[in-house]
Amino acid sequence: MNIIEGGITSATGFSVGSTACGIKKSKKDITLLYSEYDCIVAGAFTQNVVRAAPVMWDEHIVHQHNTVRALVVNSGNANACTGTQGEQDTKEMALVAATSVGVKQEEVLVCSTGVIGVPLPMQNIRQGIKECSINLKSSVEAGTSSAEAILTTDTFTKEIAVTVEVGNTTVTIGAMAKGSGMIHPNMATMLSFCTTDANVDRSYLQQLVSKSVQESYNMISVDGDTSTNDTVLVFANGASNSPLITKESEYAPLFEEAFRYLHRELAKQIIQDGEGASKLIELQIKGAASLEDARVMAKSAISSNLVKTAFFGSDANWGRLVCAMGYSGAFFDLAHVTLTYISHAGMVVVLKEGEPINFNEELAKKILDEKEIIVSLVVGDGPGEATAWGCDLSYEYVRINGEYRS
Amino acid sequence: MNIIEGGITSATGFSVGSTACGIKKSKKDITLLYSEYDCIVAGAFTQNVVRAAPVMWDEHIVHQHNTVRALVVNSGNANACTGTQGEQDTKEMALVAATSVGVKQEEVLVCSTGVIGVPLPMQNIRQGIKECSINLKSSVEAGTSSAEAILTTDTFTKEIAVTVEVGNTTVTIGAMAKGSGMIHPNMATMLSFCTTDANVDRSYLQQLVSKSVQESYNMISVDGDTSTNDTVLVFANGASNSPLITKESEYAPLFEEAFRYLHRELAKQIIQDGEGASKLIELQIKGAASLEDARVMAKSAISSNLVKTAFFGSDANWGRLVCAMGYSGAFFDLAHVTLTYISHAGMVVVLKEGEPINFNEELAKKILDEKEIIVSLVVGDGPGEATAWGCDLSYEYVRINGEYRS
Repeated sequence: MNIIEGGITSATGFSVGSTACGIKKSKKDITLLYSEYDCIVAGAFTQNVVRAAPVMWDEHIVHQHNTVRALVVNSGNANACTGTQGEQDTKEMALVAATSVGVKQEEVLVCSTGVIGVPLPMQNIRQGIKECSINLKSSVEAGTSSAEAILTTDTFTKEIAVTVEVGNTTVTIGAMAKGSGMIHPNMATMLSFCTTDANVDRSYLQQLVSKSVQESYNMISVDGDTSTNDTVLVFANGASNSPLITKESEYAPLFEEAFRYLHRELAKQIIQDGEGASKLIELQIKGAASLEDARVMAKSAISSNLVKTAFFGSDANWGRLVCAMGYSGAFFDLAHVTLTYISHAGMVVVLKEGEPINFNEELAKKILDEKEIIVSLVVGDGPGEATAWGCDLSYEYVRINGEYRS
Repeated sequence: MNIIEGGITSATGFSVGSTACGIKKSKKDITLLYSEYDCIVAGAFTQNVVRAAPVMWDEHIVHQHNTVRALVVNSGNANACTGTQGEQDTKEMALVAATSVGVKQEEVLVCSTGVIGVPLPMQNIRQGIKECSINLKSSVEAGTSSAEAILTTDTFTKEIAVTVEVGNTTVTIGAMAKGSGMIHPNMATMLSFCTTDANVDRSYLQQLVSKSVQESYNMISVDGDTSTNDTVLVFANGASNSPLITKESEYAPLFEEAFRYLHRELAKQIIQDGEGASKLIELQIKGAASLEDARVMAKSAISSNLVKTAFFGSDANWGRLVCAMGYSGAFFDLAHVTLTYISHAGMVVVLKEGEPINFNEELAKKILDEKEIIVSLVVGDGPGEATAWGCDLSYEYVRINGEYRS
């Protein structure tokens, strides 16, 4: 696997156009992704009872196993809780995009992110889609421009691209994401789009998406804490003419490694750009009774406001971590828990086999003052291991979210 | 039911002593409650996997149906995650208190609240308990002093007392609580202590406690979001010589009304003193498929950081409320949801039967600028109704919890 410069346009046959159509005050807010060739598509969608109109449109297409040719995404307005008007608007976005690039309406996926409950400004959007369509490019710059157009409160674009050798063919996988609201993941939209020119079996691709989401985006989120719009989409157009990659094929392990790496890295980028976040916390659980238990505990600990504020204050208040694991629903015996803080400044054990250690507070403070902190938790001798990523909770988070609509 | 001035000492036969023994820097941090007569006792305890030593001590006594005579509570240190030393310290607290007032060790309940993972300063505590025991008083002032001694980051004492006529006898119920960390309820300790001179059947009293907790303290808390120390205790010493109140007795409805009122009011006081809270939010759900669904939705909405920050910013960002209900695990059809904001400044409907209303933003801002806000949510035509209380999430919350141990 090689990491290359690029993103959503790196794979052969994909191009994008982006513009500012006036949903946001002065920033780019709409982008159109186009594939020269038919794409198979795999996806993962929010589990929220309240689902935005575009989520239902996309889910239907993905589940029908249709091939697609394009994706249109607007930011600044989520088209969620917008009633029947919202459904019509999503369909119209697909239709306008389809007409603009000469494909069928049902070959166009649609995503929206932003404020909930406000009807889309369709006149701006119609105009915006047309502008995007006459400006399609495959350059790295065009990819970055597209990654910009999907942002809401994010402060930087999230892109990644890799190549993998499949037989004698080099295939490329590129992706972009947004979601800075994931600091407390209970409803800010997470969007992730991935393109590849690999020739991949559809059901295998869907399995890969589901697996990757579990260990990447779902590990920066609390179970059930999904927004009205969360969407992960992967487009594969086969343009590299690589051998077909199936679950059983010899190329599967390499491709899978690259695919999972890419989604984990995007998840970490999202957390690093968490609203108001000043620190990246990586929480590693080992020795849990099962993988599921390890994940549940890790997610619970990383999502606690009290844990997050303690990291903000560089306070080695480890009791809050243990307590948040304790109400996670997973079982463990405190008598077997060992907790260590690690960063570039050193490491310090604060709890060993359930007994609190009289640790060096000064060293702990130095470790927690770093920008990237690892919390290592051994909770027993079971086989369950999981890693979750989170960030601190700062004044800035409150400012951003208190003023969001204003 | 009459509301009277007073609290934990209002019922006949109960007295308290309190002092500052040096766990906290300069504030009262220990209190001893004593009953002249044997008390039956009922309780509710944290469901956290990680339970502090005093919780296990109390739970054992309550489950054994022993009568008790005293309760000792320290603040500033939770005696949680303190290993075997913590268990010994709890037992010693009970023993010192028992010796001081001349009762048996197993007639003394123990509670601790404060920082986790630090051994108790037992020398201070021994001395403190003795000071409390030579200073026992039944005055209203002594009650308030006791309510002060159990506080941690709370900014005011939480007390309430009522009288009820049981036959020809006036019985008194008084209570105090602490728990300002409940703004995001995931681990700050909630303690509630209630005393009554009513003559009550033990199993009926336990039923009342369980029922009251469900609709009071549990409705300012997320299911499973319990601390290592959460404890609710009710002492009844029968000193009023009232007729015995059982589930079937004619006095039960009046007594129950008073008992539930008292716990709901204390829960609201806790929320009003939420860490950094500037607003009290009352969220009413009607029309849910079941009581359980209504409770789950209400708790989910009131616990969302994004909902809380929107209230902080007086932002009628109702989509966040609907979204948080959507990931609660309970089902509802958005097409039947009507959402109204109400306060002294007026009322405004923002969503009607699933369709967003083009509401008056200026009026909405005025309504949300008030200190007490009601959110009315009709989610269907089912029989499920529930009310939850929450508060906004402010800069002050982050400051308090970033600096807690420092």
